Amino acid sequence: MVIVIQCRDEVGLIAGISRILAESKMNIISMLEHVDPSEPRFFVRVESDGPVDPATLRTRLLDFLPNGAELSIDPFPNKRIVVLVTKEHHCLSDILVRNHFKTLGAEVLAVIGNHANLRELSERFGIPYHTISHEGKTKEVFEAEILSQIDHYAPDFVVLAKFMRILSPSFVEKYPSRVINIHHSFLPAFVGADPYRQAYARGVKLIGATAHFVTNDLDDGPIITQQIIPVDHTYTAANMRKAGLEIETAVLARALNLAFEDRILVHGNKTVVFE
Amino acid sequence: MVIVIQCRDEVGLIAGISRILAESKMNIISMLEHVDPSEPRFFVRVESDGPVDPATLRTRLLDFLPNGAELSIDPFPNKRIVVLVTKEHHCLSDILVRNHFKTLGAEVLAVIGNHANLRELSERFGIPYHTISHEGKTKEVFEAEILSQIDHYAPDFVVLAKFMRILSPSFVEKYPSRVINIHHSFLPAFVGADPYRQAYARGVKLIGATAHFVTNDLDDGPIITQQIIPVDHTYTAANMRKAGLEIETAVLARALNLAFEDRILVHGNKTVVFE
Amino acid sequence: MVIVIQCRDEVGLIAGISRILAESKMNIISMLEHVDPSEPRFFVRVESDGPVDPATLRTRLLDFLPNGAELSIDPFPNKRIVVLVTKEHHCLSDILVRNHFKTLGAEVLAVIGNHANLRELSERFGIPYHTISHEGKTKEVFEAEILSQIDHYAPDFVVLAKFMRILSPSFVEKYPSRVINIHHSFLPAFVGADPYRQAYARGVKLIGATAHFVTNDLDDGPIITQQIIPVDHTYTAANMRKAGLEIETAVLARALNLAFEDRILVHGNKTVVFE
Amino acid sequence: MVIVIQCRDEVGLIAGISRILAESKMNIISMLEHVDPSEPRFFVRVESDGPVDPATLRTRLLDFLPNGAELSIDPFPNKRIVVLVTKEHHCLSDILVRNHFKTLGAEVLAVIGNHANLRELSERFGIPYHTISHEGKTKEVFEAEILSQIDHYAPDFVVLAKFMRILSPSFVEKYPSRVINIHHSFLPAFVGADPYRQAYARGVKLIGATAHFVTNDLDDGPIITQQIIPVDHTYTAANMRKAGLEIETAVLARALNLAFEDRILVHGNKTVVFE
Repeated sequence: MVIVIQCRDEVGLIAGISRILAESKMNIISMLEHVDPSEPRFFVRVESDGPVDPATLRTRLLDFLPNGAELSIDPFPNKRIVVLVTKEHHCLSDILVRNHFKTLGAEVLAVIGNHANLRELSERFGIPYHTISHEGKTKEVFEAEILSQIDHYAPDFVVLAKFMRILSPSFVEKYPSRVINIHHSFLPAFVGADPYRQAYARGVKLIGATAHFVTNDLDDGPIITQQIIPVDHTYTAANMRKAGLEIETAVLARALNLAFEDRILVHGNKTVVFE
Repeated sequence: MVIVIQCRDEVGLIAGISRILAESKMNIISMLEHVDPSEPRFFVRVESDGPVDPATLRTRLLDFLPNGAELSIDPFPNKRIVVLVTKEHHCLSDILVRNHFKTLGAEVLAVIGNHANLRELSERFGIPYHTISHEGKTKEVFEAEILSQIDHYAPDFVVLAKFMRILSPSFVEKYPSRVINIHHSFLPAFVGADPYRQAYARGVKLIGATAHFVTNDLDDGPIITQQIIPVDHTYTAANMRKAGLEIETAVLARALNLAFEDRILVHGNKTVVFE
Repeated sequence: MVIVIQCRDEVGLIAGISRILAESKMNIISMLEHVDPSEPRFFVRVESDGPVDPATLRTRLLDFLPNGAELSIDPFPNKRIVVLVTKEHHCLSDILVRNHFKTLGAEVLAVIGNHANLRELSERFGIPYHTISHEGKTKEVFEAEILSQIDHYAPDFVVLAKFMRILSPSFVEKYPSRVINIHHSFLPAFVGADPYRQAYARGVKLIGATAHFVTNDLDDGPIITQQIIPVDHTYTAANMRKAGLEIETAVLARALNLAFEDRILVHGNKTVVFE
Repeated sequence: MVIVIQCRDEVGLIAGISRILAESKMNIISMLEHVDPSEPRFFVRVESDGPVDPATLRTRLLDFLPNGAELSIDPFPNKRIVVLVTKEHHCLSDILVRNHFKTLGAEVLAVIGNHANLRELSERFGIPYHTISHEGKTKEVFEAEILSQIDHYAPDFVVLAKFMRILSPSFVEKYPSRVINIHHSFLPAFVGADPYRQAYARGVKLIGATAHFVTNDLDDGPIITQQIIPVDHTYTAANMRKAGLEIETAVLARALNLAFEDRILVHGNKTVVFE
């Protein structure tokens, strides 16, 4: 069972929480906490096992915690996800292989693409694929069709695995802190279109990828994890793009792993990531 | 105040420790804990401030903890160190500069060298330098002279900053878990003499450095931290040696920082490092 | 066209080779050279295009080069490979996905496993799978069966993608510098069985993976590339094994990419890798 | 002797250059070349030794090379540098220690600071220190005083080792591609003042440092080298600043090493770095 809490910081929170768990005969496997002194705000993630009923534990904890505490108690089953794609296969392939071998930590319910070319791959792994083209439609209609299809599956997370359309605020608000995107630059450098072309033009010596939650502002949501790889003068924009495939795949895989294990707490435009 | 505890694991340790701190009006700034399930054994590091007297807190904690608990309560002053060197200056320079600008987290009491050539550097920074040559002496006599000089300063840690003589068990036993060495390979690869020559001969594509506590077995003590850098076919053993200087300096600096902040708990031949 | 040469070093080799290419109306796209001064020995890799016939160019170059020069001229088609596996899927999955999307730089002709459980994956991608069990056979018979199956495909490279049986010298000699293995440690640390268990026991702070050519000596062939990832006290041997999957996959993928583009020159027990 | 050339690309450049060197009885120790196909433009760096007079070799090469070729022939003596600082000591300390032990690859002629507090350190190493305050002066006067002092030493490079004043175009034009700055972010992220505060506000998971040549545009000159280190939610802006000291020092040291060995070729707003 994973218990995740964030609330206003007060003296005695750890003592109180650990007392309640001990009284509930829960064994603490790991406990990771963080206090942001600038507010101050308290964050904790506890892995625990024991006989207690989640609803009972929730009541006990909420009785103790300060008003306004955000609390989730997750019995740690597999999460359920829908993946959105455009044309590039690398992130999707990685997700489908892990899903196939039960190492993803989540179940892929379906793949939705605004092009048809990844249908073959998805079906090779027995995963439903829905082509919803954006062509000849207003953004509103396009997004409504996608949302309708997503809602049908009621996923825990929506994963943008190189989905190259910008989502409108009304879309994002339906799944707050539950839409995860991979952006192909080390944000905040190279926001927007074709970051590799921007990186080439600037002559940088490293390129990167950033996994983040999607919010209303383009490429400006809470960052989950980032990595870079070195490049040099021999790289064209196309070479950077090719080299970037590996790191995009790796960064998204890592962000998903963190999300599926309830290790990411979002507060404002930042994340606390307990590893 | 830094409180570091290791003991047999039991249910309720975190609850008890945090209750005692709360009762003592201590505020927990950070609390990092680890359970090694293979024993099971419990490790915790707490940064805390408040009005309590360390001796009183020690008594309260020992009354609560299981028998055999190892407990240190450090009011977090600067540590005091003696540095041993041979001929290479890079690690010593870094330590002396940080000491000079009060960013080392420790005070350098003295430098002891088995050669005289780093005297000039030490004295440039106003640090006493003792030359104790190993030549024409038995190992016993040599080590006795060094120990006598170290004992005179009563340091918290002895830092081997590229000290190229192997210390005998009787020396090491005088400062258990308090002698820190930098070895110029990613242990356990290339134990012993001239690891860069060994690395060159093997044709490895990365070289590294390892900071570890010194025990009776050569290069076999508990590892604190390690890093590597890539190399390729253009590196001779001499090039590797030169490239390695940077990483040796960085790895030792990091290990010292961890040690001086009471972040390393030694158990058996391993370390728990709370960062 | 990729031209790869190694030979005794002499003054004027670059001038002569580039003169011959210019006379043959070849355009040099890239030229990477290395001299190992310890012999001295000369290594060069040239990417070039132009109208010349490879056989004619070979004759011209051999006429110029010192006796004993090793020369390969590769018109840069896809290489052809056979992959050997045991039970773990991660490296094979990565290879099969890349093969499927034509980004591997080689064609997978077949997969051979000493267990049957990766047949399903291979066939999902339309690749022939041959189960050749080692059970109830002498090593000689087992290897003869595998060799026979490999020989049938006449591949350029044999890739050991977590093939967990040790090959005998007589096997390896059939494909000199053409059998590529992924070993799950940063060699030469943790040679042999279960390196993650060894790494856990030693308490290292980094684990790694090494891709190398297979020679007669276990885990002692020429190293192609290596990478590491940091670990800490929270990792059990099982956690290390899981974390290692990512880096094993990445390191093998990189080694294959280098091999398939004729970027690795083997000399003695070392490699020159032109990137 | 290091020969560095950049010019319009043509067929036969390598053949011609290596022929001229061979005719001049020069032995090629290493030769690194790059063609930027987008122009196309040719870049080469040759380390060579032999009996030829540099002026004679220059004439022979210029006779052969296309019009407009940029050519430098450096007999590879130590470069001579002036270092500008403000208040932070870490980069300067590193430079002074390397200078002291003759491992910098350059000679530090003098340090100029707009504050006085690093005088003590410089003089400890016997290096002249000039305090030139910016207070109560126009920018023009301030820069004129600094330029006058720099010109007095006629250095090969001016190193901004955490010099926190923005230089005007007229200053920079006096030393084109010869003023090297360390900026404390992975450019182009966080241009301008206090990048660590910006990084903290954005919630990034990595911070970095960039060494670049200074041009008229703030933080927008040709990048030499960049590195990053991971950070997490526990880092305040102050912690990032402290962690960044190490990487700023390392990145500047590496850029200086590249510059002092004539390994950086500037073209437009980019660098070709031959390693």
